[in-house]
Amino acid sequence: MSQSNPLQITLIGAGTIGLSFVALHFQHAVSPGAPTLELTIHDSRPDIEEYILQTLPAYIDADITKKPYVAGGFDITLRDVQKRSRSNTLIVDDNLESAVSKASIIQEQGPESAAFKTALWPKVEQHCPPDALLWSSTSGISASIQSTHMKDRSRLIVAHPWNPPHVMPLIEVVPSPHTSPEVITRTMGFWKSMGKVPVLLQKEITGFVGNRLAFALLREAIHLVNEGVASVKDIDSVMENSLGPRWAISGPFKSYQAGGGEGGIEAFFNNIGGTVQACWNDAGKVNMGEGWEERIYNQTGEAYGVVDTKRRDAKTRTVLGGARSSGE
Amino acid sequence: MSQSNPLQITLIGAGTIGLSFVALHFQHAVSPGAPTLELTIHDSRPDIEEYILQTLPAYIDADITKKPYVAGGFDITLRDVQKRSRSNTLIVDDNLESAVSKASIIQEQGPESAAFKTALWPKVEQHCPPDALLWSSTSGISASIQSTHMKDRSRLIVAHPWNPPHVMPLIEVVPSPHTSPEVITRTMGFWKSMGKVPVLLQKEITGFVGNRLAFALLREAIHLVNEGVASVKDIDSVMENSLGPRWAISGPFKSYQAGGGEGGIEAFFNNIGGTVQACWNDAGKVNMGEGWEERIYNQTGEAYGVVDTKRRDAKTRTVLGGARSSGE
Repeated sequence: MSQSNPLQITLIGAGTIGLSFVALHFQHAVSPGAPTLELTIHDSRPDIEEYILQTLPAYIDADITKKPYVAGGFDITLRDVQKRSRSNTLIVDDNLESAVSKASIIQEQGPESAAFKTALWPKVEQHCPPDALLWSSTSGISASIQSTHMKDRSRLIVAHPWNPPHVMPLIEVVPSPHTSPEVITRTMGFWKSMGKVPVLLQKEITGFVGNRLAFALLREAIHLVNEGVASVKDIDSVMENSLGPRWAISGPFKSYQAGGGEGGIEAFFNNIGGTVQACWNDAGKVNMGEGWEERIYNQTGEAYGVVDTKRRDAKTRTVLGGARSSGE
Repeated sequence: MSQSNPLQITLIGAGTIGLSFVALHFQHAVSPGAPTLELTIHDSRPDIEEYILQTLPAYIDADITKKPYVAGGFDITLRDVQKRSRSNTLIVDDNLESAVSKASIIQEQGPESAAFKTALWPKVEQHCPPDALLWSSTSGISASIQSTHMKDRSRLIVAHPWNPPHVMPLIEVVPSPHTSPEVITRTMGFWKSMGKVPVLLQKEITGFVGNRLAFALLREAIHLVNEGVASVKDIDSVMENSLGPRWAISGPFKSYQAGGGEGGIEAFFNNIGGTVQACWNDAGKVNMGEGWEERIYNQTGEAYGVVDTKRRDAKTRTVLGGARSSGE
């Protein structure tokens, strides 16, 4: 894309994820060679302009000023890179038709409701440019379901970020069986060019990969608190001082490949497969609504109160820098 | 402990974990205020001295020289802190009786066999000082089992490190119902004074906490590869770019407390409990020996070959530094 054409992105839905995407795109727009950014937010809340002015500074250290002569327009200038900044624009537009009419990328993070999403995409499809990429940030409603009423179902793909997307590298890219290879390729390419780590799933599946893995571990963690083996805080401490830092550098398969020494993961399972199976046989099988909730909620609330996510995000950047140090 | 009395620690078993403990103790011995260290290694391999000289430098950057007038003794001087080093000694002793006779701490990381361990402790108990702390590094054989033939079962406790212990902060401290409160208190106190994070479990349980959590996630990861949802490498990539860095900073309960905003983990479950339960209902239930092994071993071997653990450990230190930045 030449420097003279701005990159036009439209975000549908300005909640936590939406504003974090705003931060991500404006951060990237000041990197060398990046095109000028024209980012449109479409959201139905009536106080949207005020809300953005109040909330966005928690995500991005920037000067935000009204842009004269651009309806709903704001100038966003990142404070730490002012000399490299150019005129990147944020536009707030409560009219869906005009909000998507010129976009080359349209990403929705609206309500997590199949009814909302299946109704949205036919309207978007009707008014957006024919080659615009159409992405859903959903964590649970597949592109198969979302595209039900679209004329061209090959256009839609899930691009599920990890929260908050302006910090976390992962994007789970989940096509439906209808999604075209070209849409997959362009989607993967865009996120790589943003410095993100898009991972392409081969099949649609409930919860995708990241949340399925997290919830499997969470189930065992709840079981251990429930059984009185360890407190909420002690389980978190175990994670922060062993598995977390280990998996920040090498995922479970790579870790057990290392754990088996020269014999790799096969040697690991030969050595310790009996213990692994014993733990699986004995694994917790808690379910929602079985009465463990109160203990977990109370212990967690007492341990942490309201978590300072700004500090967490600053630490996350440091950890990610360390995990990527000395190449990979 | 006064500076004039050396800290006498005996390690039984000089495999990967044993040598990493050697590195840990010598690293700590040069910190301000630490007592002089006299560390004894007891191991039955005949080439033990050669083995240590060859293998220890992979764990610790030190000059290792023979110590005249000390049978089996070595001088270990850390290269990066020479000016603060004093005369810390490593002694190799293949006689169990003399190896434990003066120790204030005895930690075993011998063969992972109940027969070995239940036979070991009565001998140790007979020859060691009456107030010596007795620790097992086992990942699977409880202190209840190990202490079966001891005269005083209250002395034994599990102190399970995360590999490699000279890098990873976690020590899972697992008493048996016989273990005395005083042994628990002294054990927790020692590891805290070493800058480690000891976590005290309230009950003995197969796999303790860390491995149970890891294996629960591993089971789902194997299932996802097995079902063709994602490759070994893609699953590792998901972990390294989302859950790993997140859990390095805040464990699962703290993470979901943050994920629920002001409503905390209760709001998280109210929002997304349906998806959590759907993932649990659909969770993988693979078992050892069901035929998934070959695919996993092949994909992992092809992806990684022999993992460079020295580089991993260097990155781990950076990640741990980042996770602990700006206090906690």
